[in-house]
Amino acid sequence: MPVFTEYASASRELRVLPSFAPPLPRLTPTVSEDTKTERYEVVVVGAGPAGLMLDLLLARYGLSDESLLCIDSKPTTLKSGQADGLQPRTLETLKSLGLADEILTEGCQMWQVAFWNPSDDKDKIIERTSLIPDVAVPARYPHEVTIHQGRIERILETDLLRYSKRGVQRDTQLIDVKIDESDAEYPVLAEIETDGHRRSVRSKYLVGADGAHSMVRRCMGLKLEGESLDHIWGVVDLIVDTDFPDIRKRCAIHSPAGSVMVIPRERIATGDYLTRLYVQVPGDVDPDSDQQPENGTNGTNTPPVGDARTRRSKVTEKTIFENAAAAFKPYYIRPKTDDAVDWWAAYQIGQRVADDFSVKDSKGVNRVFIAGDACHTHSPKAGQGMNVSMMDSYNLAWKLAYSIHGLTPASAAEKADPILETYNTERHTIAQQLIDFDRAFSSMFSGKIGASQDGSGELTHDEFLQVFSRGNGFTSGCGIEYTENMTVVRDLDNGSNPINGTDYLSGILRPGRRLLNVRLVRHADGYRRDLQDDFSSTGRFRILCLTSSDLLDHNGTSAQALVALGAIIPQFPLSVVEQVVIHPRLPREFMWNDIPGEVKEHSEMSFYSGYELDDVYDIYGVNPDRGAVAIVRPDGYIGIISELGDVSRVEQYLKSIIRTV
Amino acid sequence: MPVFTEYASASRELRVLPSFAPPLPRLTPTVSEDTKTERYEVVVVGAGPAGLMLDLLLARYGLSDESLLCIDSKPTTLKSGQADGLQPRTLETLKSLGLADEILTEGCQMWQVAFWNPSDDKDKIIERTSLIPDVAVPARYPHEVTIHQGRIERILETDLLRYSKRGVQRDTQLIDVKIDESDAEYPVLAEIETDGHRRSVRSKYLVGADGAHSMVRRCMGLKLEGESLDHIWGVVDLIVDTDFPDIRKRCAIHSPAGSVMVIPRERIATGDYLTRLYVQVPGDVDPDSDQQPENGTNGTNTPPVGDARTRRSKVTEKTIFENAAAAFKPYYIRPKTDDAVDWWAAYQIGQRVADDFSVKDSKGVNRVFIAGDACHTHSPKAGQGMNVSMMDSYNLAWKLAYSIHGLTPASAAEKADPILETYNTERHTIAQQLIDFDRAFSSMFSGKIGASQDGSGELTHDEFLQVFSRGNGFTSGCGIEYTENMTVVRDLDNGSNPINGTDYLSGILRPGRRLLNVRLVRHADGYRRDLQDDFSSTGRFRILCLTSSDLLDHNGTSAQALVALGAIIPQFPLSVVEQVVIHPRLPREFMWNDIPGEVKEHSEMSFYSGYELDDVYDIYGVNPDRGAVAIVRPDGYIGIISELGDVSRVEQYLKSIIRTV
Repeated sequence: MPVFTEYASASRELRVLPSFAPPLPRLTPTVSEDTKTERYEVVVVGAGPAGLMLDLLLARYGLSDESLLCIDSKPTTLKSGQADGLQPRTLETLKSLGLADEILTEGCQMWQVAFWNPSDDKDKIIERTSLIPDVAVPARYPHEVTIHQGRIERILETDLLRYSKRGVQRDTQLIDVKIDESDAEYPVLAEIETDGHRRSVRSKYLVGADGAHSMVRRCMGLKLEGESLDHIWGVVDLIVDTDFPDIRKRCAIHSPAGSVMVIPRERIATGDYLTRLYVQVPGDVDPDSDQQPENGTNGTNTPPVGDARTRRSKVTEKTIFENAAAAFKPYYIRPKTDDAVDWWAAYQIGQRVADDFSVKDSKGVNRVFIAGDACHTHSPKAGQGMNVSMMDSYNLAWKLAYSIHGLTPASAAEKADPILETYNTERHTIAQQLIDFDRAFSSMFSGKIGASQDGSGELTHDEFLQVFSRGNGFTSGCGIEYTENMTVVRDLDNGSNPINGTDYLSGILRPGRRLLNVRLVRHADGYRRDLQDDFSSTGRFRILCLTSSDLLDHNGTSAQALVALGAIIPQFPLSVVEQVVIHPRLPREFMWNDIPGEVKEHSEMSFYSGYELDDVYDIYGVNPDRGAVAIVRPDGYIGIISELGDVSRVEQYLKSIIRTV
Repeated sequence: MPVFTEYASASRELRVLPSFAPPLPRLTPTVSEDTKTERYEVVVVGAGPAGLMLDLLLARYGLSDESLLCIDSKPTTLKSGQADGLQPRTLETLKSLGLADEILTEGCQMWQVAFWNPSDDKDKIIERTSLIPDVAVPARYPHEVTIHQGRIERILETDLLRYSKRGVQRDTQLIDVKIDESDAEYPVLAEIETDGHRRSVRSKYLVGADGAHSMVRRCMGLKLEGESLDHIWGVVDLIVDTDFPDIRKRCAIHSPAGSVMVIPRERIATGDYLTRLYVQVPGDVDPDSDQQPENGTNGTNTPPVGDARTRRSKVTEKTIFENAAAAFKPYYIRPKTDDAVDWWAAYQIGQRVADDFSVKDSKGVNRVFIAGDACHTHSPKAGQGMNVSMMDSYNLAWKLAYSIHGLTPASAAEKADPILETYNTERHTIAQQLIDFDRAFSSMFSGKIGASQDGSGELTHDEFLQVFSRGNGFTSGCGIEYTENMTVVRDLDNGSNPINGTDYLSGILRPGRRLLNVRLVRHADGYRRDLQDDFSSTGRFRILCLTSSDLLDHNGTSAQALVALGAIIPQFPLSVVEQVVIHPRLPREFMWNDIPGEVKEHSEMSFYSGYELDDVYDIYGVNPDRGAVAIVRPDGYIGIISELGDVSRVEQYLKSIIRTV
């Protein structure tokens, strides 16, 4: 467009660059450099999925390279672990960080699970007995994604480098960590080593995201509990040649010759698709007769290593394929070419969980945390590990940032911050559930399944299917419910609870559960939008106000609530509390000037009709004649619910967590 | 997951990296270096949206830095042009390149258009008379997106740098270009200058994507035709403070005081949202009394510059705001702060189109092409410029690549390649349509609209709305239909045409039109998928086989067609022809072994049921009892349609464009 007169502002040119997440405001002084000691507010040990997620979130929330250090013993994201599954809830979280596109586009979307069992027709040997959705609960992405763990790590690290010049300090090992209160402000003292050069680093907080053999856990004397052992399994990633019809679906195959789980994987550069097979190595092992020694630090008594170890040593690529081939019969399965095997391994894992996820100093301040595999070890078959690990960090990050930035009332009063205590409260419970689920799922999956109920003690296919489906709330990540604590308040009696229904998995609002995504239409511009896009992971609390149908009545409950909420928001540090407003079907069309000005002031671009696409009120269990208010935490979990008329309840909750200004 | 035995292949580690589009096979020798002369197969002049799109596509198709040079006179993507609108069809194209995510997430999605007109109620002055969808035709993304042109360029260039080490050679100007057949293989001779250093560059082909004042166009003696002039308009990007209720919608405001178009724009780093206003500067100008001199090279006679130039010089930021404020009354509108104006300009543009988009050498080989604004100038108000420009390149790129890589029969025979002729055939027609539409739309938009039909010659609101809606096929980019040529064959008589219906805008298959996206379920894994994701912009032709309902009959038409198609695909260079298969509802469930093995062989991961989500057969106008075959070109446009039983027609078409091996 040729123009003949033109003016452009200086800032305009910068608008071609990718945008950044806005940092949280900081009310505490920024860290001052101490020339004597290298020190940080947070040190993260380990840059696997848990450590990178934590480091990235803290950097996005505003912790600078002077404030934050992440170290990892590995040289690169190459040679990373073998996890490959992302749950729907993890996908929602990655989307809220703007990091889901490559994963959704290039990962393998798993939409279905096929169950294959012994057939009554002896010629068939096995037959498909069920084909069900892989994810049976409502979720923004109703499927799982499988993709190389290293790719997730590379995506997280690439984004980290937009916020942190240093990124991860690699080739760096933790040697020791202890709490040493001679420096009361930086009481965590770590010894680390880079390329043979050892140094001391002090920090306010340290997080061990350093895996199953966590050095942080060991140094802090935290114990792994639980000791049952899974059967021996082989696992292989390869390009297959097979006539098995469901090779691109997740499959649980129980054949007379053994069990196999098929996990379809992503397409690779050759245009081929990878497949992961979990293959049971037959023969029984007494689950309590042996366990894998875990550097002698697991805190449980170690029985003599016997038969199982001998058997494990016999597992080779050849035995894995022999067992797989037997279980797939009458179908054939083999590597497509001689070099079609990408990776294989054999493993035998006990389900164990750490007794505590954090350690306090003498003043009761939580100073050292562990996250991810450092907290929980379990079998890989339910595809949980990488997810639960990243979600540990997602839970911890905002709490750490609020405390460090002086955004909590306790941090203002310089007291032990109770918000940091909620990390262990919330995530330890989830880890225990993970372990319990995995124990049931693994042993069931390892067991034989008969096609008929013959009283032999074998599981029936229906029983297996039931456990699988019941577990879906957990395995999808969408059914997680945090226990009651200062950030999850569930003290409403029936009379004052504006929520109808208890089917929380389907979206009924419930403190402690994540806010289900819904599709709605924005008032300002008619944008057909996903609600979760207004709940991005920028560390903000959000008031979700579902007005009642009296919104157009200037003296109605809705209008009064919106005016009152408009007076609450400015009491908190700028931008820390945002507001999203949804209205039900109203008696007539309206424009901005028909509703309180507070809506446009605080929610011009987050004000929606909740009935044109999804029936939001029905999904959330809110009566349109009554409305409701929910507070959603920075991690997308609902903190409290209140009646529309009881805005003081909202105010009280927010003030218990966020400092006023 | 701790393992006790492990093996990993060397290639595994590379799988953490982003994936690349697979290049096209090359049957011609790669370019050999000539020490005497700097030479390339293609030189692209200009790295705006048209030039970058072309350069990126050619690099993705396999042209190396030795084969391809792109120069631009600007130092960076900063200070780029002022276009801001992306059509649904352009979004589909960007998605097919994996480049849509940032644009969809961070651009402004325009879903609605509001029409404001004089009110009969004199206190109101203006009122909203209609609110309609911005995009009224089916499209994968049923909205437009507005976003800074420089951001699009930065996204394209970032991706380019994954395929090209050099990227764009900046600060480099074209001084002259001519065809000099003393080097018959590299007959295009260009003089370019970098930082005052001048050099000669030879190439097989040169593309001028160098904007409205194109030096390539001038050097080649191509003429712009058409000379009518738009009215004088001011345009401003700013953060507004207003009580106008539809400020976040696209608006056409016709008030008694003048006309304004509102274009909502993206959110910027401050959290504010930009708005673009097009403001008419009142007073009439004789459209033929003046025109903007275009360096004296436009080839039309230049009448004396008079009144209009005087008036243009009076347009300032102040007059633009005064006119806007008057048109918005009774609502107020002003910059939110003193520094809220991002950019403003005044312009007056004639609608003109180049007489030819390519120039041949003495042997009849098309050697020099122009694309984008070099071919067509028009007003910005319909948001077409950046789109038509990028789509010029999208049309040209695969044709150039096929010819250069020796994938066309003509290139094998070393004759003038007729496929290169189709660029002008197809895109000149579209440019003419663009100009015609823009002329009608602009003059109508500049005209006064009365609320009542009083015979004054003014447009009625209904008339305006009609033109707007009828234009939607064109303005969305989804209604483009290429004229018949060797790649678009429409010679079926009624009896042999398997397509029912003529509502091509709604998806009915039609040679020359783009394949509408549909949602379907993949057989192999139950993935609920967008069909267009199987038509990514990797330069491949695709056979789209819609089987009939007799698919499970081994001797049926469908089975016979699939077997025959399976024999056609291997006749062409490896991977150049892909196949996608869709089936209608069938009489029973089935597995792979119930259908011809050719389906799994060629389409394991592109075989779908076409009735579970969208009713694909109905949308495409195909009778499920009859089926149909379509060939889709590398740019997503249908080339030919055939009966399921007439596979030789498909073979003939493919052989006319692609060399066999």
